[in-house]
Amino acid sequence: MSISLGSDNHSGVHPKILNSILETNQGHAPAYGTDELTAQTEKLVKEVFGKNAEPYFVFNGTAANVLCLQSMMESHEAVITASTAHLQMDECGAPEKIIGCKRLLVPSADGKITTDGIKKHLVRLGDQHCSQPKVVSITQPTEYGTCYSLEELREIRRFTRENNLLLHIDGARLIQAAHFLKTDLKSITEGIGADAVSFGGTKNGLLCGEIALIYHEPAKKKFKYIRKQNMQLPSKMRFIAGQFQELLKGPGLWREIAGHTQALAQRLAEGLKNFPEVTVTQPVQANSVFVTIPKAWFKPLREEFFFYVWDETRFEMRWMISFDVTTKDIDRFLAVMRQLKETT
Amino acid sequence: MSISLGSDNHSGVHPKILNSILETNQGHAPAYGTDELTAQTEKLVKEVFGKNAEPYFVFNGTAANVLCLQSMMESHEAVITASTAHLQMDECGAPEKIIGCKRLLVPSADGKITTDGIKKHLVRLGDQHCSQPKVVSITQPTEYGTCYSLEELREIRRFTRENNLLLHIDGARLIQAAHFLKTDLKSITEGIGADAVSFGGTKNGLLCGEIALIYHEPAKKKFKYIRKQNMQLPSKMRFIAGQFQELLKGPGLWREIAGHTQALAQRLAEGLKNFPEVTVTQPVQANSVFVTIPKAWFKPLREEFFFYVWDETRFEMRWMISFDVTTKDIDRFLAVMRQLKETT
Amino acid sequence: MSISLGSDNHSGVHPKILNSILETNQGHAPAYGTDELTAQTEKLVKEVFGKNAEPYFVFNGTAANVLCLQSMMESHEAVITASTAHLQMDECGAPEKIIGCKRLLVPSADGKITTDGIKKHLVRLGDQHCSQPKVVSITQPTEYGTCYSLEELREIRRFTRENNLLLHIDGARLIQAAHFLKTDLKSITEGIGADAVSFGGTKNGLLCGEIALIYHEPAKKKFKYIRKQNMQLPSKMRFIAGQFQELLKGPGLWREIAGHTQALAQRLAEGLKNFPEVTVTQPVQANSVFVTIPKAWFKPLREEFFFYVWDETRFEMRWMISFDVTTKDIDRFLAVMRQLKETT
Amino acid sequence: MSISLGSDNHSGVHPKILNSILETNQGHAPAYGTDELTAQTEKLVKEVFGKNAEPYFVFNGTAANVLCLQSMMESHEAVITASTAHLQMDECGAPEKIIGCKRLLVPSADGKITTDGIKKHLVRLGDQHCSQPKVVSITQPTEYGTCYSLEELREIRRFTRENNLLLHIDGARLIQAAHFLKTDLKSITEGIGADAVSFGGTKNGLLCGEIALIYHEPAKKKFKYIRKQNMQLPSKMRFIAGQFQELLKGPGLWREIAGHTQALAQRLAEGLKNFPEVTVTQPVQANSVFVTIPKAWFKPLREEFFFYVWDETRFEMRWMISFDVTTKDIDRFLAVMRQLKETT
Repeated sequence: MSISLGSDNHSGVHPKILNSILETNQGHAPAYGTDELTAQTEKLVKEVFGKNAEPYFVFNGTAANVLCLQSMMESHEAVITASTAHLQMDECGAPEKIIGCKRLLVPSADGKITTDGIKKHLVRLGDQHCSQPKVVSITQPTEYGTCYSLEELREIRRFTRENNLLLHIDGARLIQAAHFLKTDLKSITEGIGADAVSFGGTKNGLLCGEIALIYHEPAKKKFKYIRKQNMQLPSKMRFIAGQFQELLKGPGLWREIAGHTQALAQRLAEGLKNFPEVTVTQPVQANSVFVTIPKAWFKPLREEFFFYVWDETRFEMRWMISFDVTTKDIDRFLAVMRQLKETT
Repeated sequence: MSISLGSDNHSGVHPKILNSILETNQGHAPAYGTDELTAQTEKLVKEVFGKNAEPYFVFNGTAANVLCLQSMMESHEAVITASTAHLQMDECGAPEKIIGCKRLLVPSADGKITTDGIKKHLVRLGDQHCSQPKVVSITQPTEYGTCYSLEELREIRRFTRENNLLLHIDGARLIQAAHFLKTDLKSITEGIGADAVSFGGTKNGLLCGEIALIYHEPAKKKFKYIRKQNMQLPSKMRFIAGQFQELLKGPGLWREIAGHTQALAQRLAEGLKNFPEVTVTQPVQANSVFVTIPKAWFKPLREEFFFYVWDETRFEMRWMISFDVTTKDIDRFLAVMRQLKETT
Repeated sequence: MSISLGSDNHSGVHPKILNSILETNQGHAPAYGTDELTAQTEKLVKEVFGKNAEPYFVFNGTAANVLCLQSMMESHEAVITASTAHLQMDECGAPEKIIGCKRLLVPSADGKITTDGIKKHLVRLGDQHCSQPKVVSITQPTEYGTCYSLEELREIRRFTRENNLLLHIDGARLIQAAHFLKTDLKSITEGIGADAVSFGGTKNGLLCGEIALIYHEPAKKKFKYIRKQNMQLPSKMRFIAGQFQELLKGPGLWREIAGHTQALAQRLAEGLKNFPEVTVTQPVQANSVFVTIPKAWFKPLREEFFFYVWDETRFEMRWMISFDVTTKDIDRFLAVMRQLKETT
Repeated sequence: MSISLGSDNHSGVHPKILNSILETNQGHAPAYGTDELTAQTEKLVKEVFGKNAEPYFVFNGTAANVLCLQSMMESHEAVITASTAHLQMDECGAPEKIIGCKRLLVPSADGKITTDGIKKHLVRLGDQHCSQPKVVSITQPTEYGTCYSLEELREIRRFTRENNLLLHIDGARLIQAAHFLKTDLKSITEGIGADAVSFGGTKNGLLCGEIALIYHEPAKKKFKYIRKQNMQLPSKMRFIAGQFQELLKGPGLWREIAGHTQALAQRLAEGLKNFPEVTVTQPVQANSVFVTIPKAWFKPLREEFFFYVWDETRFEMRWMISFDVTTKDIDRFLAVMRQLKETT
């Protein structure tokens, strides 16, 4: 497969991350997170995400999301999410199966939800016939590549606090939001008072691995058991921890990756301005561009670079940019479009 | 940490496996198992484990075990295992949580169970008040490093078939059994009529990754959904598949690893014959040696090489040998014992 | 409490049903459904609902609904219902907890759904990231007192068969539908090819008790275990069976109850024609009348007869008529309204 | 069926209880426990079981047990019970399915467990690979008709408190224990510091109905939701509450029933002294007698009065006495035995 705009998990492992795996592979170490490298990385995570962040490494994003939620709620409670949330659309019912909880959906066109939308679900409180709202889960940046501003985050946090709701952030691509908002990772997690955050690794250049960051104290007491019982305790933990150390340490490989991919997304969006046939359907605030294109362009474009139709009903495409996509790739993509424009 | 005899997950990644990861890391590939390397590896797995084996890659051994079982049973059914099984002792109740099923235990001293022990649980069939036995799960080699012979496996298979029971094999270290029984992997899986097998990678030199091998046709229809819903679908699948390709291809790195570690276990056991103070408590048929030792030796020995007390009540130790332990390491361990013998 | 229009579970036990309890209370009988009276009633149920109907008595309607579904689907599958369904609104997330499945909602204003609405959810079939539609559950009559016609039922059945979907009917008030459609109970269950039906008792004059009617053969094999494991196996079963015998035998107490209550609902709706201030918001096709009324009338009317605001947003009331409401009661209610009309 | 010694759920409804149902059946009442009669009964329950007892009416004993436990524990925790417990033997895996928890069994010959037996399971505390003990559940009287003395109860309570364990009592026949111990119901529940008690109705003359008595404060906060979500919220609650009012009010129908049935059990045991062929295998401390009898007597005796073989392996019978068994019945049973003695 050549370069794909299908997803940021179509790319492989970032060379620096891969190198960290080689470095980790020295001798023996205790399993299940009791090793030195994991301890170091946990310390680093607290520096990066705030001292109240308790990090638990898990294998994938579905697990980070579902276990964050499970640690904070019970089966008779409900989680409020956008109708577009990955949790709702792409987990094959994992929250229902693993937590047994109800989902309350806030319709969303750009992936974001507001306190008005959340409020509509705060009905029948105390009614035994009705699942009780307990957690609000937002995705940052959203599945549509849009970012909540710091003000929006603070407003949601204020509202959830006032209404005894906990706040979870699905941050599979959180590094993009920190870069877009010109801030650091702590400011958009501990800083805005999140109770739990799924911090993604796999979509940001790792082989595999995510962190469930738990701020909510009662959840910390049980998370290690929840992780093991739900089959997410890695035995050779150091290899996941080590990758995150590489991603998060120093000035930050994460910034480099977010900066590079976001610049390319902007370059692509900029280039699209020359194509009145193409509509960019969402603000470009992360490493993706959502567009509608002429139907005739679809097949030849996909032959160049693979990508997904994101919404069949409006024939909306998603172009997602991985860490290893280059300026040249984007320019070639635009060139193909110019050709198509001329020939169709 | 120096060399550890604690577990075969204290070692890191086998150099050849690590090299395969480097090779896999070329360009983009579709995610979730739709890539070329995964397809190739699936083909290879069928060659190695039999044409009816449908392989599903998952992250860890708990998942391989629990999802194999879930795909073959329902919550009102029961799984029969040895009282010593990993499924019973070390999964933090994962089968209960994920499947909701009952466990029926056959007391075991060496990790093995017999049809007599299984038969005791075949009571109250058809009684609605009682979970109905559906699957027998054996570990091969067992948690005590003992192997079922081919005759024993066939006898269990005959019995389970006659009694409408399915057969699952927890093969976290299955390569050891194939080596010990001087046979291949197909002969002790498809060859003896297993319905599902957890084939381990992590304890045999992988970074992470296990295969749920499904032979039972109805289970194949739903396994992919079960895997996703239970948070075990790796997005960058090729990196798990590629490791297994390296382990299984050609004459077999797996044979090399099993042969080497088993030879060291035998060397260690042989060396222990010179120590009347030490009792080898289990037949040595895999890569581990179980022993009782003088209490005074415990601390100094552990300072040399870490290991676990496996059974507190009988002060029984487990010495587990990883792929990268050397003859020199074993000889040094024996030398330390000789010293202890002389000085205590 | 005087007469209530709040719900048909505000009334007590129908005198004939209560008498049947007295008659059942003779001597000893085996427990858990192995008694003579239960056997007789099961035979009667097959006569009334068709020879393929396998009846399982349970305690309440939530259980009948959830266990019917559980017997026909797995956690990675989805059930399609109206957004207004009791299953969705009033079970405190029981399907999510007990089955672990996903809910797919078809927006509905009158409680009914159409094949067009169902079809919208038949997307991503075979996609492992997405819960797979397996059952369509309709309520007959609906929570808004409307009935699917025989043609509508057959159309839904045709569509579900063609799309490999199973059909469940929540018939908490099924007797109302049979009466409204001028047919018998078999014609709207086995006759239209339902796979499972929750047949209500409690809202039709029983002390407690519902029947899960299973037509789907694979579900029959496991239902008894599912019932017990989910805590719904009544020990003194004969007392539930006996009540249903009374309800269903001969010309049918059920017809008497449905006829009486539906006539009163029609009488009430007819009387409302004299009040332009009152809008009947739903077709009256069962034992309930949905209305909007002047806000000023709310309090004094509720003092006369208790009832619920069904939809706060449109200030829509539900007036539900139990078996023991009388013509006099309805006329008195209308008289109170006339008074209110004059004085406000 | 004539009189049965099979179980105390083979009898029907006690005449006074049945009469209370007739009295309850007056007019309309709010559903789901918000009625006057339920409120009165809740008050009465607090008088009888202690002011901290929060009563929740449910349909059956399985539910009372499982929901008491669910309200006090999580899926990664474990409940310790006797190997003979109903929870273990006769619930078709309900605790595993509903709670997802692990069971830890204490072997028992007479149905009782001791702190020594419990203590054996207090290992690996804090180990993430291992379900953490949280609740001890005892049956009082046990499934073998034996009673824990007040001293034994206090000792278990002391031990559980010291070890951060909660205490659940399965009291399906708790009235028998209160009578045997010559005390009241409060003394053996709140008095000994139980955290939750399943108080049985069905086996003590009710049509159906049990009470989950919750003393543990955190469990009270969520029990109503747990009850509904697990399909155990009775809509016509007053009919269950009313039966318990009759059982518990004044000097106590419960005492009358326990006194009568226990006297008959003693009479039967006394009569058996004349039969050296018969061994009474358990102390007679409730309404049952466990015996071994000559094999030749089995068939003719069962023709007279039905009963169960309780333990096939030791050919041990259970003779269980319901409220409506008479002195004459017992004497006739003994007479049949005399005849058998003479003729075989």
